[in-house]
Amino acid sequence: MNQPVSHDAFHDLDGDTLHEECGVFGILGHPDAATLTALGLHALQHRGQEAAGIVCFDGTQFHTEKHMGLVGDHYTNPATLAKLPGDMAIGHTRYSTTGEVALRNVQPLFAELEVGGIAVAHNGNFTNGLTLRRQLIAGGAICQSTSDTEVVLHLIARSRYTSTTDRFIDAIRQMEGGYSMLALTRTKLIAARDPTGIRPLVMGELDGKPIFCSETCALDIIGAKYVRDVENGEIIICEIQPDGSIEIDSRKSPTAQPERLCLFEYVYFARPDSVVGGRSVYVARKNMGINLAKEAPVEADVVVPVPDGGTPAALGYAQESGIPFEYGIIRNHYVGRTFIEPTQQIRAFGVKLKHSANRAMIEGKRVVLVDDSIVRGTTSLKIVQMIRDAGAKEVHLRVASPMIFHPDFYGIDTPDAEKLLANQYDGVEAMCRYIGADSLQFLSINGLYRAVGGEDRNPARPQFTDHYFTGDYPTRLLDKAAETMGRKVSVLASNG
Amino acid sequence: MNQPVSHDAFHDLDGDTLHEECGVFGILGHPDAATLTALGLHALQHRGQEAAGIVCFDGTQFHTEKHMGLVGDHYTNPATLAKLPGDMAIGHTRYSTTGEVALRNVQPLFAELEVGGIAVAHNGNFTNGLTLRRQLIAGGAICQSTSDTEVVLHLIARSRYTSTTDRFIDAIRQMEGGYSMLALTRTKLIAARDPTGIRPLVMGELDGKPIFCSETCALDIIGAKYVRDVENGEIIICEIQPDGSIEIDSRKSPTAQPERLCLFEYVYFARPDSVVGGRSVYVARKNMGINLAKEAPVEADVVVPVPDGGTPAALGYAQESGIPFEYGIIRNHYVGRTFIEPTQQIRAFGVKLKHSANRAMIEGKRVVLVDDSIVRGTTSLKIVQMIRDAGAKEVHLRVASPMIFHPDFYGIDTPDAEKLLANQYDGVEAMCRYIGADSLQFLSINGLYRAVGGEDRNPARPQFTDHYFTGDYPTRLLDKAAETMGRKVSVLASNG
Amino acid sequence: MNQPVSHDAFHDLDGDTLHEECGVFGILGHPDAATLTALGLHALQHRGQEAAGIVCFDGTQFHTEKHMGLVGDHYTNPATLAKLPGDMAIGHTRYSTTGEVALRNVQPLFAELEVGGIAVAHNGNFTNGLTLRRQLIAGGAICQSTSDTEVVLHLIARSRYTSTTDRFIDAIRQMEGGYSMLALTRTKLIAARDPTGIRPLVMGELDGKPIFCSETCALDIIGAKYVRDVENGEIIICEIQPDGSIEIDSRKSPTAQPERLCLFEYVYFARPDSVVGGRSVYVARKNMGINLAKEAPVEADVVVPVPDGGTPAALGYAQESGIPFEYGIIRNHYVGRTFIEPTQQIRAFGVKLKHSANRAMIEGKRVVLVDDSIVRGTTSLKIVQMIRDAGAKEVHLRVASPMIFHPDFYGIDTPDAEKLLANQYDGVEAMCRYIGADSLQFLSINGLYRAVGGEDRNPARPQFTDHYFTGDYPTRLLDKAAETMGRKVSVLASNG
Amino acid sequence: MNQPVSHDAFHDLDGDTLHEECGVFGILGHPDAATLTALGLHALQHRGQEAAGIVCFDGTQFHTEKHMGLVGDHYTNPATLAKLPGDMAIGHTRYSTTGEVALRNVQPLFAELEVGGIAVAHNGNFTNGLTLRRQLIAGGAICQSTSDTEVVLHLIARSRYTSTTDRFIDAIRQMEGGYSMLALTRTKLIAARDPTGIRPLVMGELDGKPIFCSETCALDIIGAKYVRDVENGEIIICEIQPDGSIEIDSRKSPTAQPERLCLFEYVYFARPDSVVGGRSVYVARKNMGINLAKEAPVEADVVVPVPDGGTPAALGYAQESGIPFEYGIIRNHYVGRTFIEPTQQIRAFGVKLKHSANRAMIEGKRVVLVDDSIVRGTTSLKIVQMIRDAGAKEVHLRVASPMIFHPDFYGIDTPDAEKLLANQYDGVEAMCRYIGADSLQFLSINGLYRAVGGEDRNPARPQFTDHYFTGDYPTRLLDKAAETMGRKVSVLASNG
Repeated sequence: MNQPVSHDAFHDLDGDTLHEECGVFGILGHPDAATLTALGLHALQHRGQEAAGIVCFDGTQFHTEKHMGLVGDHYTNPATLAKLPGDMAIGHTRYSTTGEVALRNVQPLFAELEVGGIAVAHNGNFTNGLTLRRQLIAGGAICQSTSDTEVVLHLIARSRYTSTTDRFIDAIRQMEGGYSMLALTRTKLIAARDPTGIRPLVMGELDGKPIFCSETCALDIIGAKYVRDVENGEIIICEIQPDGSIEIDSRKSPTAQPERLCLFEYVYFARPDSVVGGRSVYVARKNMGINLAKEAPVEADVVVPVPDGGTPAALGYAQESGIPFEYGIIRNHYVGRTFIEPTQQIRAFGVKLKHSANRAMIEGKRVVLVDDSIVRGTTSLKIVQMIRDAGAKEVHLRVASPMIFHPDFYGIDTPDAEKLLANQYDGVEAMCRYIGADSLQFLSINGLYRAVGGEDRNPARPQFTDHYFTGDYPTRLLDKAAETMGRKVSVLASNG
Repeated sequence: MNQPVSHDAFHDLDGDTLHEECGVFGILGHPDAATLTALGLHALQHRGQEAAGIVCFDGTQFHTEKHMGLVGDHYTNPATLAKLPGDMAIGHTRYSTTGEVALRNVQPLFAELEVGGIAVAHNGNFTNGLTLRRQLIAGGAICQSTSDTEVVLHLIARSRYTSTTDRFIDAIRQMEGGYSMLALTRTKLIAARDPTGIRPLVMGELDGKPIFCSETCALDIIGAKYVRDVENGEIIICEIQPDGSIEIDSRKSPTAQPERLCLFEYVYFARPDSVVGGRSVYVARKNMGINLAKEAPVEADVVVPVPDGGTPAALGYAQESGIPFEYGIIRNHYVGRTFIEPTQQIRAFGVKLKHSANRAMIEGKRVVLVDDSIVRGTTSLKIVQMIRDAGAKEVHLRVASPMIFHPDFYGIDTPDAEKLLANQYDGVEAMCRYIGADSLQFLSINGLYRAVGGEDRNPARPQFTDHYFTGDYPTRLLDKAAETMGRKVSVLASNG
Repeated sequence: MNQPVSHDAFHDLDGDTLHEECGVFGILGHPDAATLTALGLHALQHRGQEAAGIVCFDGTQFHTEKHMGLVGDHYTNPATLAKLPGDMAIGHTRYSTTGEVALRNVQPLFAELEVGGIAVAHNGNFTNGLTLRRQLIAGGAICQSTSDTEVVLHLIARSRYTSTTDRFIDAIRQMEGGYSMLALTRTKLIAARDPTGIRPLVMGELDGKPIFCSETCALDIIGAKYVRDVENGEIIICEIQPDGSIEIDSRKSPTAQPERLCLFEYVYFARPDSVVGGRSVYVARKNMGINLAKEAPVEADVVVPVPDGGTPAALGYAQESGIPFEYGIIRNHYVGRTFIEPTQQIRAFGVKLKHSANRAMIEGKRVVLVDDSIVRGTTSLKIVQMIRDAGAKEVHLRVASPMIFHPDFYGIDTPDAEKLLANQYDGVEAMCRYIGADSLQFLSINGLYRAVGGEDRNPARPQFTDHYFTGDYPTRLLDKAAETMGRKVSVLASNG
Repeated sequence: MNQPVSHDAFHDLDGDTLHEECGVFGILGHPDAATLTALGLHALQHRGQEAAGIVCFDGTQFHTEKHMGLVGDHYTNPATLAKLPGDMAIGHTRYSTTGEVALRNVQPLFAELEVGGIAVAHNGNFTNGLTLRRQLIAGGAICQSTSDTEVVLHLIARSRYTSTTDRFIDAIRQMEGGYSMLALTRTKLIAARDPTGIRPLVMGELDGKPIFCSETCALDIIGAKYVRDVENGEIIICEIQPDGSIEIDSRKSPTAQPERLCLFEYVYFARPDSVVGGRSVYVARKNMGINLAKEAPVEADVVVPVPDGGTPAALGYAQESGIPFEYGIIRNHYVGRTFIEPTQQIRAFGVKLKHSANRAMIEGKRVVLVDDSIVRGTTSLKIVQMIRDAGAKEVHLRVASPMIFHPDFYGIDTPDAEKLLANQYDGVEAMCRYIGADSLQFLSINGLYRAVGGEDRNPARPQFTDHYFTGDYPTRLLDKAAETMGRKVSVLASNG
């Protein structure tokens, strides 16, 4: 009984998962702006569980609340919401990177400009963030956070343009990478998506008021209507007019490239009930399982999903193969918040703190385990062992995505390349021996493309970005080329 | 994608669920006693999420730690475990009843007797607890908690017998109801199960050391072996001998009745990977779904489980009926801890904070929703509505247990009888109209008996207790007869 | 600039002070009972800074709040006071003994009796508390705290008498030692003082409603009128009548002895603005300084008080001797709450964290330091050194009370006898050398008696208790004779 | 028994006091840099109790800790100090201004420059801070705090000069007002005092290592030697050389004016044991009392200081007048931290929460109350009433400083001018009637000058700044002239 929504992100004891770094939500012109933003962020919680922030504007003043922890730990509190008045707000939910758990890095960030205040939040990563930061510091800028968002703010503050919109566009055009960005000024909600469209961003509408958010599930929770995806390289400016009406303007970046959405949104990150790039994530995942059953069939008694991500693919695999689908692994949802630093003795229990074998469905059976992906393989190893201990006759591991060889630079927190299983062992056979399964197979890259988009990969012009599998990066990597500073180094160590 | 393990208990916004009140775990003679107890309680977390306590004995002194919150929030902390030395321990995890959230009520409770200290913890409820409490107070006893466990302690302290074992047996024989009880003295671990065997209690073994716990899943997590169920009316005394060996003695209560395990352990409470009364809970639940498909078939396009409890039954229903099983409802696991007191505005979003419809699997379809049980029906109403809003053509609700008419007095926290859906509407038709489904059907009592035990109910001598369905209570109800005091009234309101 | 009110109790880094264990306050029939009790406890805060508790009765139910920390940290909070409705309350403020910082020990304690609830709080100590506790446990009583107050509750609960008043008197007559006790029932406020009158207890009145409290300063803060001292061995029962009037009854214990108030109340404990036993504490302290100047004159340039206790005596010494009084030591009031466990490096700064020399008044001068008492002498040593470091030509230490040789058993927390300075060195000369002063002199026992009561000590029938100076204990010491258990041992180590 | 050290700042219920805004401490080249800084800040706690921060540099990285609350609440914790390695540190303690209780405003502030990191902390206020801030924002700077310190950082970051020293000097020369400033770079500790020398700053030395701090009491606590005052307009640069030696360089600002130290440092702010501008604060305060006795004698029985500030002046008054000095008002030091927001009912007890009359010294007596200053007069009113209630025959109030008519702009938080008592009533007679005293007199401006400096005020070239009394401001007031923005307004309201 597996649940693809609650990623391992929250309680990853082994560092054996990928993490998305953020979710964003914004709304303009609605009297319940902060409450709706809180609900939207709650629906996007799977994109980041470390902290959440909201900035709103009440016609006179901007207000901000930032809290470590889950959205539901803070933003449902009447006292907190009372401090967020006004009819326009943007919010952000953030994933916990090691060590840097500091409120000053929690988005949205705010700056007071001569033309008025502006708050900015983004999901994704800039491939030239450090390069720009160094230029800014050389130019006398003071950076208080280690967040790339602050770089955007500085670029806006220093822009030669007059209007905030022009300044925002000026800044955004200097940024390279994969991102979805929202900005809030005294009258405007601005949304922007990177030129290649790596990170998702959708536009919705509630009571005629515009909403932007990372996934459609944030529209569903508040009963809002999906309007369309923000296009790659598009900047949409929504502005409240003196008469209360809202004017919406769209500008397409001249640097826009053909869209290449991140495949991992389909494989792992997005919520299964979301529609990303016009495609149901759940259906895509089931298709991955169906294609996997076709590519890598096996004689077996039960198909067992590996929680949490493997469930829809396992269902597809079972339906395609005719082998019964059963909950052979049970998940314990009561993993406390301090399990993050357990005693060594408890750490040794590892995967059992979260999962247990359902012996009645395993004992004496030939089991097909279906998982969404393999990163370092340490968890797979333990789960295969757990299934064997529960009496399985055979254990076949099927992975609903290709092997991962390359790091990401667009907002996914990947382990160092040499720690990826595919780089540690030479070929599937060796990987299978390490994991201890009777057989191991991965979905092909074309199997994945067909599951998501219905067609094989177009090598000349790939429909998605798939660099972690192929090494084919959709943008240049300026910071990586410079490589003179660590990615997240700051010379100030701080607790606040 | 539903998860029967994480009950609604933790974030029940509507009071529309049943709650078990506790889980217990104890171990004797193992050097890692406290750590193993913490892990066992973690596996039993679904039986109570309010608070957890552990008492251990280190050869000289008893130690206790009690904390509000999840086991994993506190007991994996090295500092906390360091305060729990010794090779014998018992622990308890407790469900939150309204208002009385006080550390002084957290078990195990301890008393210093003339013959030495004793700690006691139990799962279940005494049907003569208040009657005995009144007698004790009349006799000059001082009660510091509102817990029935304290009554047991007083009976032990006042017993005319000399040895702790005899005092414990003397006390336990005065208690009526349904319970599993553990006690720890300076040399002994004692386990007792009520004369009718209403609440479960199993015996296990790790490295030759005896363990007792509420469910087998607590054995599995630590790799312990299942030995046998403690019998109804049995008291098992394990005592460390001077040479370190452990002597185990069993006494059968003369008041023991034929066993009648609580059916709700199968329907809802126990973890699906547990084996209760020798039967796989998961298999029992799937059988309920299979029998339900036979008893209440319907033409439909998809079978959708209602999270969390309905999943195994839904799978059984799908397999029996041949209708595809699909995750039509997605659960949000990131429900924060303060969602318990949200603003009214957020409360209005109700079920959507935890569940969302997976439109791709619902729209235009005839949906069979399968749930484990219906208590008040308020959640069912909202879920049916959510499925309709997502575009379902028809919504048929199938419930994998009979209608609930009667309150429990053995440790399940039931709403007042008049709030039970079955008592509010006259017949299934009326209930169906209230809920807004196209059809509604419940599993029959015999369908349930066959799913669990393989046979129809024996009216002369029912194999299980099923009083919430039938009104046939397995014991007399002394406190209820007296009915002069509220069940959980204390005259002292306290925060500590 | 020294302040005798804020004792070293709160931040005693050296264990070089005496501590009183408690203050009590109670009021009957006043609509603001809890608020007035909180204010009274605030005025009595110098008698105990660890924790404070209040119990009140609202006509239906008893309510209690207990909090670690200062009264002003919690009881001025509207939310806290709102949980304490009703027109009768008793409260208690408690000093922190090492290790046992547990809410379950915070008074008042409450018990539900057959005849109704009763709450009890006391200041002082029972010399037969452990003896009685052992008898109670042998008789089947369960003790949840390590507080002697619980023993009183058990004696009340087990009394053969019917009315609470008779039960209370029955219990109190079994207790030996020095104490002031308050009890609250559904209609009564009861006050009792030990047979020898060791601990103080006064009766006051506000708007015609009776008040009892440890010192008159608790009457002053709320503008209440002082009525009289509760006599030694007296029990005063105040009862609300059905018509709202209050009937007051007094019973004198047949075991009452001639009163012998504790001299340390005058020397150190009581607030200088309090009137204890009909005498101004401030005047008594100044008299001690005057008598000290007569008994132990010295040629000097300035009289400097040692903060905090030495200030009034120093003023008396200066006025009598004609030597100018100057603030030669400045106190830092901002000692944080965690200074209790500083790093070793910071601990080394010792007395300087709280005091600093005012060099302008010290340099080149012959200084008379006046302190209230010397316990272990470790602080005196450091202060003399600090004064020398600031350039004093001579340092003469004058102590406004006699040498301390004996432990207390009536509620003052004294160090072990062998750690008392007077027991470590043979004579004043040796003590003076240890401390490093040019001369050292103590007030004589008759000088102290005259300062407080105007007459020499009557050896046949001492007017006060002075056992710490003389070894002449006013009661038998039953627990000490038995001496089989440590004074505060419990076999359960607990954090809650 | 009054204590001039612990200002009302901490628990000012009426807003009837003046507040200094900060204290600073820095040390270079000492292995215990952070611990010594913590101790120095503890000694300077009276200059600000809201929060404290320390920045240090360990040869590789800067580290910072910032905490709300007292120094002793956090910085004595071994865990906190362990996070502050290195042999150079600066620290800051800050007074709580209303509303803006935010960690992001706690100093020192830090910026990463191209030439390396720099941390800055200051005491005082810039009279052109807002003007500069607006210019900076217009130039594209982003301000994260509302602190003027950030303005300094921006000026440093944007300076055209190369070395940090030159950049610092460049920045400081643009700032107007009254301030003492410390900066820390990777090799340097820099100290600067404003051109008029309004705020104090002293240089000390420990084990040959330079220290700078606001007052000498911070040198005394760590046993450091006073070297000299930093001169007005002086910038002292201490730099660690490669061989570990320290080079010290001094530069005098060309804008330096004749020094005019703030008289309120002597009247109220500085600790009595500090030496400010070469004069003992304690002696200056006693002199104020002596001069007051000469200027404003009265027939009376006792001289009673008004806590806390009035004590030394009262002693001087008593010595000069021959009227006995007595503690007629007792202070309660146990004012809890939440007293800041008490219930209305408790607020009504007002001054009594902190002070009580010592009736034995008041009743039937003619009382001279001596206070250090009168701001709004609300506290004086209550204290006079309290003294009358305690039975005084006459109450004469003598104030050891002149009447306050004008606001401060150099770091003292003054109430709005129209709330100052001297502006509310026309003349001393009317003020006396409002306060309810039998007579009221203030020290003359010349009496104050003579008490501090030994000479009358030189009207042509006043030796001190005395603008709150005279309106003669020592600098121009640029922000005030502009007056387009509120003094502490930010458009972002934030909790973090």
